[in-house]
Amino acid sequence: MKRIGILTSGGDAPGMNAAIRAVVRKGIYDKIEVYGINYGYAGLVAGDIRRLDVSDVGDKIQRGGTFLYSARYPEFATEEGQLKGIEQLKKFGIEGLVVVGGDGSYQGALALTKRGFPAIGIPGTIDNDIPGTDFTIGFDTAINTVLESIDRIRDTATSHVRTFVIEVMGRNAGDIALWSGVAGGADEIVIPEHNFDMASVAKRIQEGRDRGKKHCLIILAEGVMGGHEFAEKLSDFGDFHTRVSILGHMVRGGSPSARDRVLASKFGAYAVELLEQGRGGLCVGVVDNKMVSSDIIDTLKNKHHDPDMSLYGLNQQISF
Amino acid sequence: MKRIGILTSGGDAPGMNAAIRAVVRKGIYDKIEVYGINYGYAGLVAGDIRRLDVSDVGDKIQRGGTFLYSARYPEFATEEGQLKGIEQLKKFGIEGLVVVGGDGSYQGALALTKRGFPAIGIPGTIDNDIPGTDFTIGFDTAINTVLESIDRIRDTATSHVRTFVIEVMGRNAGDIALWSGVAGGADEIVIPEHNFDMASVAKRIQEGRDRGKKHCLIILAEGVMGGHEFAEKLSDFGDFHTRVSILGHMVRGGSPSARDRVLASKFGAYAVELLEQGRGGLCVGVVDNKMVSSDIIDTLKNKHHDPDMSLYGLNQQISF
Amino acid sequence: MKRIGILTSGGDAPGMNAAIRAVVRKGIYDKIEVYGINYGYAGLVAGDIRRLDVSDVGDKIQRGGTFLYSARYPEFATEEGQLKGIEQLKKFGIEGLVVVGGDGSYQGALALTKRGFPAIGIPGTIDNDIPGTDFTIGFDTAINTVLESIDRIRDTATSHVRTFVIEVMGRNAGDIALWSGVAGGADEIVIPEHNFDMASVAKRIQEGRDRGKKHCLIILAEGVMGGHEFAEKLSDFGDFHTRVSILGHMVRGGSPSARDRVLASKFGAYAVELLEQGRGGLCVGVVDNKMVSSDIIDTLKNKHHDPDMSLYGLNQQISF
Amino acid sequence: MKRIGILTSGGDAPGMNAAIRAVVRKGIYDKIEVYGINYGYAGLVAGDIRRLDVSDVGDKIQRGGTFLYSARYPEFATEEGQLKGIEQLKKFGIEGLVVVGGDGSYQGALALTKRGFPAIGIPGTIDNDIPGTDFTIGFDTAINTVLESIDRIRDTATSHVRTFVIEVMGRNAGDIALWSGVAGGADEIVIPEHNFDMASVAKRIQEGRDRGKKHCLIILAEGVMGGHEFAEKLSDFGDFHTRVSILGHMVRGGSPSARDRVLASKFGAYAVELLEQGRGGLCVGVVDNKMVSSDIIDTLKNKHHDPDMSLYGLNQQISF
Repeated sequence: MKRIGILTSGGDAPGMNAAIRAVVRKGIYDKIEVYGINYGYAGLVAGDIRRLDVSDVGDKIQRGGTFLYSARYPEFATEEGQLKGIEQLKKFGIEGLVVVGGDGSYQGALALTKRGFPAIGIPGTIDNDIPGTDFTIGFDTAINTVLESIDRIRDTATSHVRTFVIEVMGRNAGDIALWSGVAGGADEIVIPEHNFDMASVAKRIQEGRDRGKKHCLIILAEGVMGGHEFAEKLSDFGDFHTRVSILGHMVRGGSPSARDRVLASKFGAYAVELLEQGRGGLCVGVVDNKMVSSDIIDTLKNKHHDPDMSLYGLNQQISF
Repeated sequence: MKRIGILTSGGDAPGMNAAIRAVVRKGIYDKIEVYGINYGYAGLVAGDIRRLDVSDVGDKIQRGGTFLYSARYPEFATEEGQLKGIEQLKKFGIEGLVVVGGDGSYQGALALTKRGFPAIGIPGTIDNDIPGTDFTIGFDTAINTVLESIDRIRDTATSHVRTFVIEVMGRNAGDIALWSGVAGGADEIVIPEHNFDMASVAKRIQEGRDRGKKHCLIILAEGVMGGHEFAEKLSDFGDFHTRVSILGHMVRGGSPSARDRVLASKFGAYAVELLEQGRGGLCVGVVDNKMVSSDIIDTLKNKHHDPDMSLYGLNQQISF
Repeated sequence: MKRIGILTSGGDAPGMNAAIRAVVRKGIYDKIEVYGINYGYAGLVAGDIRRLDVSDVGDKIQRGGTFLYSARYPEFATEEGQLKGIEQLKKFGIEGLVVVGGDGSYQGALALTKRGFPAIGIPGTIDNDIPGTDFTIGFDTAINTVLESIDRIRDTATSHVRTFVIEVMGRNAGDIALWSGVAGGADEIVIPEHNFDMASVAKRIQEGRDRGKKHCLIILAEGVMGGHEFAEKLSDFGDFHTRVSILGHMVRGGSPSARDRVLASKFGAYAVELLEQGRGGLCVGVVDNKMVSSDIIDTLKNKHHDPDMSLYGLNQQISF
Repeated sequence: MKRIGILTSGGDAPGMNAAIRAVVRKGIYDKIEVYGINYGYAGLVAGDIRRLDVSDVGDKIQRGGTFLYSARYPEFATEEGQLKGIEQLKKFGIEGLVVVGGDGSYQGALALTKRGFPAIGIPGTIDNDIPGTDFTIGFDTAINTVLESIDRIRDTATSHVRTFVIEVMGRNAGDIALWSGVAGGADEIVIPEHNFDMASVAKRIQEGRDRGKKHCLIILAEGVMGGHEFAEKLSDFGDFHTRVSILGHMVRGGSPSARDRVLASKFGAYAVELLEQGRGGLCVGVVDNKMVSSDIIDTLKNKHHDPDMSLYGLNQQISF
């Protein structure tokens, strides 16, 4: 393999730049030329492609977002889009592709591989909702960003004896809520993967208040419902001086954490190795601290992502 | 003067603990006993009062919120409330009071002074909307907290070519939006103190986009309208891939910045000095880097707070 | 088991408070009274012990250091010290002990257990140098703190075309240097677990310079040698405009990261469970994401801690 | 004026990029072309000059360091250097120059102006030691960076009952030590502008210890002596379990604070205005919150920079 390409797709996540850097540097170390494709699959089809050198990835490892830009591009699901993409890659003499993103990005990598063009997926999303890996790039940064906000809100909640409903990102997954909730000492964590009963929540808040508890923090995954809706439903059970805080897009940016940079670096180098071995249609992952790869087709079909539910039980015992 | 009291009132702000610490330590340095009153005027009336020693303010200077708690207590506007408050103060032998908070807190301090009990106000609020001072305690921390979020959102906005409406706190004042907007390189800053025209905003976004601008950040003061309302109105003029982010209560907490801790320390020591001089009914402030005091009655009546509007003009020139 | 005790010993680490909180709350959840022992084994022998309630661990999860204080106390290696400690524990009716700290702390826990008093060790140190666990409490926070400093120094190094030697903590272990070095995009990582050759280092710096590289960052584990010594030895091979930065005790403090708080919470709850099962002489750990426990005696004797050396090879490939 | 140039010189400081951005954008707003000169006066003489467009300063406001690089270049004190510099400027059709840096940088701007080429200085250094302004660009960020480290070290100092000597940057000025010391609640602040007596320091530490104080933090300006030297001298008066921490170059980098970005933006726009008015040989400053300019020659000759010594007295009263 002489030339490989890299693109980022779907929602951006902190650490994507570290992954791009690792792909570029590992490639160059192995005497492979690396080409960057702007704007994900949209840029691939449009031929927005350029060679990346070591200097292009200098001073990038610490930056949030993706300097190759990202975009959602549903048109890549079509045969026409895929053929056009392969045509562009061949025009540049590119023989393999690394795709950083979520399941939509994986689908594209799979489609290309099926058409004979090997592509490898790297899980990059703050939501941690991709099967085939314990952690995705961006998740560790996101939970720390949420945690900073929880710590700040606790200052105000304590000072004023209030209940706060903090809605956090995560799409249909509760991982961000679960980890940041345990780390933030949240009184309640409400996630899609576990039933909850509003009456019980209200009861526990009231009991805490009766015991002299100064504040109550509820971390709510957006996959359950919106923060304002939750507060409204809670108010049916009493007046808890509830305030709502929605931690939105700010959670998606920021300088990546140490873990995310290390993970992204490992993923990037490993993805290049797989392409060098002539592999394609795979996604990389970290399972029990080890680098693994698995068929995208199996991963997306059969494996279901589950958050670490032991954290849910733990929180009920230590944050009642 | 042998004994003074201190309370925090209204919304909490980072640096309030540094002010309390300064009052306690300056008092003790001057051989004055200092008493802390919990929950603002509510705690004053209820007699929730205790002596504070040096150890009570140890390891507090860096903490957000207020360890004396705060509360809104409209009942203190009544004669009954004020007389009860003075009775409690006298019961503890307290001869003067320092109040940290906003204009509501100042009103209470003024009322007490009028009834013969000297009280001094310290401006503590993130909103920077108190007359008689260039800066309030908490403002510097708040604009840095907002700025961190703007920086994070810029990562995502750049990666995806989007328009972001970022709603920030500030009640009726545009100070937080103005300062954080200039510091964040915002394309537009929308504040209550300056007219704006949605059509022009839309036109500038479109022009930027035509020039190849990757993102557009609009900082919106909550005193103008809500972020979602703004985005909806903007959408009448075109589709700018707009996302809304509301930076709510997290902006109120957090460890105070260096400036806020220094300012709070100065205010605290100065307020004690004023009480020692037998003064009351005053609020302290910093004007052109100098400690000043002014009559609360004049300050609230005649002086109007204005943000530094030169920043508005500056931003229009350097962030078009 | 009706009553258990907890102490922190050795160097403090971010997350120790989260572990204490988890022990207290898990204990109370399981109807066990929890007693806090100040100043580690010194306080144990002195009987500096008090009951901890839920309110004692409120607002503590986010704080660095240990609110039970820590101390080194070599005297606990003696029979006299150990017997006195057990006497104190029995005086308070305490039947089991949780110890958070490093290998010295484990030795104490082992000695107590051998004398019939069950004790469980939790690995708490930023150095990550305790066998029996992949990660210790405090390590994740420490590498992020180091990383922030590396990022800051890179700003200056880049602006001025300089070589920086950044000495980081870690005692005899290279983990902190390794992880923060990979995450920081360090050009060289020098650790006790891997040979290095100063002439080669100098050669690579010169080659980078010849290629137009703006800066060179060398992360040096304190276990190899001091930063100034390193710079002096490097200067024998040429003038690289070298500056030295020693990241000392600031790396030991700070609010714990999300990972460290979650890990500490898990460890704390698990240690209580082990005591409830009548176990002692064990240390808890996380291996491949799973909670494990192992005999302290075996762990300290047979198991050697090794950093993830794959990171070393990775860095040589992607940060040349 | 049709074309102006900008360079950064001397030690880098957070906010320099924000100043460059403001110069570029204000210039373009006023229909002036702006040229960036790399590596300060060295790059000026070498002709390392390029046109800067709006896109060159995009996504730069939040970055530490200076993207135009900086260098010390004593050769610019010679006639030959200055004439060569002017020749290069004229070659690019540049008619005025903005220089961001310290007093060395001002000297260069003055020399150019004397030779008929108008140049304006902007005070950019973390040390805050430039006369003609209350604050320099970078100072506010630096004191917040130092403060973070003080807060972290306090965690460890408290946990272990120790004395810490924290040496901070500032060249011959005590401003960084003074502000960060007050903000950090330091027990002692030792600066070049105020005498100190080691015996008294030792006495106060001992008194604090006798009163039950857990830790002692001493902030030492590097202009007085080194941290290790200080600790050694202190040890003559007793054993205070002293540790030394040297906060070196990491204080020079990092994303600029809100204040520094706002100040830098104001300075940049104002410097352009002065050049447009045909002025030269001036340095800009902020005095009592107002933009001012003053002759470089007078400023460097007659005005002496003094830190806010009221902070020194304040600290002695509230941090004993």
